[in-house]
Amino acid sequence: MSVSADSTLSEAIEHIRQIGHRAETIYYLYVLDQQRHLVGVISMRDLILSPSDELIKNVMYDQIVSVYTDTDQEEVARVIQNYDLLAVPVLTKDKKMRGIVTFDDVMDVLEEEATEDLISFAGVPKSSAEGEELSVFKTAIKRTPWIILLIFMGMLVGGLIGVFEDTLQSVLALSVFIPMIIGTGGNVGTQALAVTVRDINLKAGSKEKIGDTVKKEFGSGLIIGLISGIILFVTLIILQTNFYLSLVVSLAIFLTICFSSVVGAMVPLILNKLNIDPAVASGPFISTIIDAIGLLIYFIIATSLLDYL
Amino acid sequence: MSVSADSTLSEAIEHIRQIGHRAETIYYLYVLDQQRHLVGVISMRDLILSPSDELIKNVMYDQIVSVYTDTDQEEVARVIQNYDLLAVPVLTKDKKMRGIVTFDDVMDVLEEEATEDLISFAGVPKSSAEGEELSVFKTAIKRTPWIILLIFMGMLVGGLIGVFEDTLQSVLALSVFIPMIIGTGGNVGTQALAVTVRDINLKAGSKEKIGDTVKKEFGSGLIIGLISGIILFVTLIILQTNFYLSLVVSLAIFLTICFSSVVGAMVPLILNKLNIDPAVASGPFISTIIDAIGLLIYFIIATSLLDYL
Repeated sequence: MSVSADSTLSEAIEHIRQIGHRAETIYYLYVLDQQRHLVGVISMRDLILSPSDELIKNVMYDQIVSVYTDTDQEEVARVIQNYDLLAVPVLTKDKKMRGIVTFDDVMDVLEEEATEDLISFAGVPKSSAEGEELSVFKTAIKRTPWIILLIFMGMLVGGLIGVFEDTLQSVLALSVFIPMIIGTGGNVGTQALAVTVRDINLKAGSKEKIGDTVKKEFGSGLIIGLISGIILFVTLIILQTNFYLSLVVSLAIFLTICFSSVVGAMVPLILNKLNIDPAVASGPFISTIIDAIGLLIYFIIATSLLDYL
Repeated sequence: MSVSADSTLSEAIEHIRQIGHRAETIYYLYVLDQQRHLVGVISMRDLILSPSDELIKNVMYDQIVSVYTDTDQEEVARVIQNYDLLAVPVLTKDKKMRGIVTFDDVMDVLEEEATEDLISFAGVPKSSAEGEELSVFKTAIKRTPWIILLIFMGMLVGGLIGVFEDTLQSVLALSVFIPMIIGTGGNVGTQALAVTVRDINLKAGSKEKIGDTVKKEFGSGLIIGLISGIILFVTLIILQTNFYLSLVVSLAIFLTICFSSVVGAMVPLILNKLNIDPAVASGPFISTIIDAIGLLIYFIIATSLLDYL
């Protein structure tokens, strides 16, 4: 709903009475000039609370938060949310008013984006997340390439075990700890990833230095790794595992946790710099990379201490 | 802001003019009786668009969407979102009006919950997700027990390898596929989990049968498993891997994918039935359980075909 800047408030209210029934929102009144350029906005609140013979141009705000017809919906949602608006005007490139987006459109977008983030985090391709009406067959087909890609990445990771086959041959007990090493790397990495993605979302706008988050995650990794390593070492000794094997496993857990937390924090930060949504390109992909790092750390330590094992 | 049902609309508008400056929202006017029970609501829109000498009680709605002082904030957010409200009245147990919650409070809650879901999905404890101001040390300490728990679960999973040590001893090449088998189980399970959590969120309210989602995920698992198994088998044969070993690995991938998709779908559905937020109690925990299933499937098949390997 729009009025001219030279009307009085009572004329504006009369205007609302006449056409308000057809308007989507009456909570803001937009003030346009002759060429339909947006020059001001007045809230229903101010309209009601000001003297009725006042001119619109004297009570309107001319600092207007607006979006453009080609702004993407997630960005529009963020604008409405950050400014706590009921609606935001949509302008064409030449600043003419084209329409509005209201807060209730935005709540749906936010919910949708949140679900999408969760889905992406698990590595389900976007198209399948949106295609609620897809048949089981089509959904499965969309998910299959992703799973197959990860299977082949898993084979490459497993290939590392093949490289260290001699080491494994002489100490078969090393194999018992493989699931734990790669699982822990994945868990710590995904935690660091989630914390970093949250930080990026929360601090959207405020450009905190990449270094700070990575430094913080490295600190966390150091502490978590140290405590975990010590507890694991003590447990293995109590379970009467070979002293050097206990040492190798604990050391590997410590280093894997340190590395994984840094990698898990760095990847989303880099993706964000490259303007790729970090929640999308993450999840199992990063876990698999970190699996490889963990396995490599484990077998390098084991091989170098092989004489004692 | 509240008025009595027997005022006229123009009296109500006058009332708003007087105290509106202090009110948080003027978009709804709540109508209370003598005992401050909420009896009706009138929107600013109707207030402006109706004849000014009409009595409030003739234009107010008496079907009021409301929440209680002890309703949890996520539920309040959902009410406001589902009904596209600007504000919702908060009542005490005896239906007296206590205050309102507005849509802008809710957008923050929705964003917060979404972030929390993502964080929980990665297995970061809730308290650390909220404690943005926590030091690196305190954050690390909060995450450590979770990691240690998963380390010990990983040791138990690894124990399965120990059980099948004879099998592994005779065919060391089996160890190369361990990361792939457990990785794939985890990936498929997490996908099924994410899809199911989304379905639960989208269909909150509409009680779809548990059986349906599980059946759909089993169908997907069957298709994904079949395609992945065949592609893997062909690849291994091309790479000149032993025929029976290729068969064991491919069969294990097929069965692991089928099992994992069903488990990944069932766990959140069961948690939801028990009124536990499925996004919270999920992530790495379920991956670890599925790791064990995958490893068990793999070594049972390998052991039973050991004579041919």
